[in-house]
Amino acid sequence: MEIESATQEKAGPFTRGWNWLKALPDKSKAKVMNVAKSMRKLGQDDPRRVIHSLKVGLALTLVSLLYYSRTLYDGFGIAGIWAVLTVVVVFEFTVGGTLSKSLNRSFATFLAGALGLGAQHLASIFGEKGEPIVIGFLVFLLGAASTFTRFFPRIKARYDYGVLIFILTFSMVSVSGVRVVELLELAHQRLSTIVIGGATCIIVSMCICPVWAGEDLHNLVTSNIEKLASYLEGFGDEYFHCKSEDEEGKVNVSKKDKPFLQGYRSVLNSKSTEDSMANLARWEPRHGRFCFRHPWKQYLKIGAITRQCAYHIEALNGYINSNIQASEEFQSKIQEPCTKMSQESCKALRSLASAIKTMTDSSPANIHVENSKTAINELKFAVNKASSLEKAELLAIVPAATVASTLIEIVKCVEKLSEAVHELANLAHFKPVEATATQEKPQLSLHRGTVNPVLDGDNTDHITITIDANPTDSSENEKSQAPKSLASGTV
Amino acid sequence: MEIESATQEKAGPFTRGWNWLKALPDKSKAKVMNVAKSMRKLGQDDPRRVIHSLKVGLALTLVSLLYYSRTLYDGFGIAGIWAVLTVVVVFEFTVGGTLSKSLNRSFATFLAGALGLGAQHLASIFGEKGEPIVIGFLVFLLGAASTFTRFFPRIKARYDYGVLIFILTFSMVSVSGVRVVELLELAHQRLSTIVIGGATCIIVSMCICPVWAGEDLHNLVTSNIEKLASYLEGFGDEYFHCKSEDEEGKVNVSKKDKPFLQGYRSVLNSKSTEDSMANLARWEPRHGRFCFRHPWKQYLKIGAITRQCAYHIEALNGYINSNIQASEEFQSKIQEPCTKMSQESCKALRSLASAIKTMTDSSPANIHVENSKTAINELKFAVNKASSLEKAELLAIVPAATVASTLIEIVKCVEKLSEAVHELANLAHFKPVEATATQEKPQLSLHRGTVNPVLDGDNTDHITITIDANPTDSSENEKSQAPKSLASGTV
Repeated sequence: MEIESATQEKAGPFTRGWNWLKALPDKSKAKVMNVAKSMRKLGQDDPRRVIHSLKVGLALTLVSLLYYSRTLYDGFGIAGIWAVLTVVVVFEFTVGGTLSKSLNRSFATFLAGALGLGAQHLASIFGEKGEPIVIGFLVFLLGAASTFTRFFPRIKARYDYGVLIFILTFSMVSVSGVRVVELLELAHQRLSTIVIGGATCIIVSMCICPVWAGEDLHNLVTSNIEKLASYLEGFGDEYFHCKSEDEEGKVNVSKKDKPFLQGYRSVLNSKSTEDSMANLARWEPRHGRFCFRHPWKQYLKIGAITRQCAYHIEALNGYINSNIQASEEFQSKIQEPCTKMSQESCKALRSLASAIKTMTDSSPANIHVENSKTAINELKFAVNKASSLEKAELLAIVPAATVASTLIEIVKCVEKLSEAVHELANLAHFKPVEATATQEKPQLSLHRGTVNPVLDGDNTDHITITIDANPTDSSENEKSQAPKSLASGTV
Repeated sequence: MEIESATQEKAGPFTRGWNWLKALPDKSKAKVMNVAKSMRKLGQDDPRRVIHSLKVGLALTLVSLLYYSRTLYDGFGIAGIWAVLTVVVVFEFTVGGTLSKSLNRSFATFLAGALGLGAQHLASIFGEKGEPIVIGFLVFLLGAASTFTRFFPRIKARYDYGVLIFILTFSMVSVSGVRVVELLELAHQRLSTIVIGGATCIIVSMCICPVWAGEDLHNLVTSNIEKLASYLEGFGDEYFHCKSEDEEGKVNVSKKDKPFLQGYRSVLNSKSTEDSMANLARWEPRHGRFCFRHPWKQYLKIGAITRQCAYHIEALNGYINSNIQASEEFQSKIQEPCTKMSQESCKALRSLASAIKTMTDSSPANIHVENSKTAINELKFAVNKASSLEKAELLAIVPAATVASTLIEIVKCVEKLSEAVHELANLAHFKPVEATATQEKPQLSLHRGTVNPVLDGDNTDHITITIDANPTDSSENEKSQAPKSLASGTV
């Protein structure tokens, strides 16, 4: 490399320029290929992106009709261009985003337009000379005050765009009012074109392959829980197996090749995505399995506990890759309870994730939570037994003990998560598990009668749920449904 | 409460309505007071918010002059309103945000305007009937394609607003072109008003109390490191002291009252803020101590390691509040090295934070990193000694061992952080420590010659730094400066 660059430096600027020009077609071809490849990947990762782009194109073309068709043009005049503008700025990826922006824009335009007219009327009292001063003062005052309200976290989260449009419209109406006489008609035209643009966006966004922010949040929370479960599923094998392999001198496969050990990382920084999705989901009407007032806040709570769990897993992950020599004897003592803890936690997480995904009763997870708690006691017993070992090498025990103790924290986290999911199940009226599922796992239905699905602890504002008789119930399911009604009686 | 509500229910709708009306003035007064209080808090927390609001008001009033002054109005006509629109949508809290939006808006408008004129010319070839179809097709194509590019993470981060304005202007110019004849003049007017609006924003934003995104990022990263330091400073006392207090049966003060134990929590979710600040900082010109191409990316790297450290602290925090009975004897054995580890890590973090804050040489932190690493060995020695205890209660040892082992992880993290800060110091040409500081801490200057400030390890692309002779150096400083040039010689 160094020799090459030295030759190049000798060659002078002309030759270098020529070389660069010669390489240009190849380079640009490679670049175009690269871009095309990443575009294809982007589309393949989430085909809804391609559909969204086409939807925006469609909505734009639709509102352009306003301009093309002679009759409509005569009605709206040049204000028809505001419909195009509205479509471009209002059309968002999710239905919630589009709805929030359209509604914010419409209401803010209406309110600010009315206020602007009022301001103009007020200013006109002060005569030809006073008018610009009064208008200028009012614009300054409302502009500054509205900008300040955008710093309120609640307004920022939900009405930021509305406040922006409010300032915009108020300044435009009150300032332009000084010149344009036929203001009232203009305001009416503008408002109606904005409503037309907004309505086009909402209709296209909701009718053609809609992307619901609520559903995305629902799926994100579920997949985050599943990622943690995948980690815990692989952890036991990975930790105890690799250690023994290392000692036997076998080849140690790099952990980078195992994606299940990396998946949890995306959970660590999921807060901002979840927050913004929950904010958009609030705007969405009833869709699919979600009603208008679906408890989206509870998803944020579940997300926070999932992250908490991910922090512990991050701590745990340090020990998979560490090459600290641990006491083999001690490790073999705790291997069974530790593996059981991680396996049962994994099963509990899987069960919770599937309960959220299918929106069914989450109590089947309870048995795994109980099992993992039993494993804690088994671990304590195993450690106690190990302490009777003669000449325990304490230093060698420390890393393994830390792993065990971190696993205990994870089990506690999973228990908290299970409580939060039960709460969600109560709030969102999740259906009881279907009979077919119960028949597949008879050992779970046995426990359902005894485990109380209601949260205990400090959360006392329980909601009483009346579970409707399932219309699809056939008589052959009735027997297995019996313990369910017993359980629901305690809710 | 229950009795009260029962009485209310009996009272009938009229009385209830009357009661509600009677309570209304008090209620609304309380609400207004509440809002006023939170507004005041918002302003006190960061007075720059108030200034920003006033700046927006000022910029708005300034561009309104375009409309008021007769001569300018004759020049721009109704297009002057675009200056108002530009100010409202472009003015952001930070200079970087304002610059990024103004530049994006100007370039996108120019480019899309030119393309729109071209599209219109192309369409006119197809005759009266073909024109709307060609224009409609082109709008659909460019709208969909541009929307898709917004999904590229890099474009999303830096040029999202530009692409939006591109679609907007292209559709507006090409669609409206079907009707408006004097398009070229309109485009010129619009572009110049946008430039005027953007320029007003940039000037007001940069000249009156500017808020620099880069400086904010710099301060955020520093304060995050300091938050971790505060935690570690208090941790040793908190953990070992409280445990012994508990055993003596004294009153245990709630940890909620100690803000230094909660501060680190905000670090856990700082990623999105840091990312967006770094994106805005790229747009900012030289300001204060930061040049145009300040290595903002390195701040993100430091931020990531800081978060890593915070995850470990989160794990550690679980043990402060846990009421697991730990072996007193073992705890007292490890108390000294553990306290030393957390104290020295704290000092190292403080030193790194102050190096970033003052933009001076970060090598004084090395000694604390070394000390904390020595403490790891002391801990190992202490644990080995403890293992000779007869009848060690292994179970009771586990929580304390976990704390120790988590502290070791934190020390490792602090070392990585120190390397990243050294790298930043190299990239951003941090000044060597001033002589006064060296004289205050003579024990540090002794080490500076021996500790190599250059990163070792896998990062081999070192940058050679020529440290300018400090123009403020006086002859009395020369002696203490000597080891510095020695150290910089190895860089």
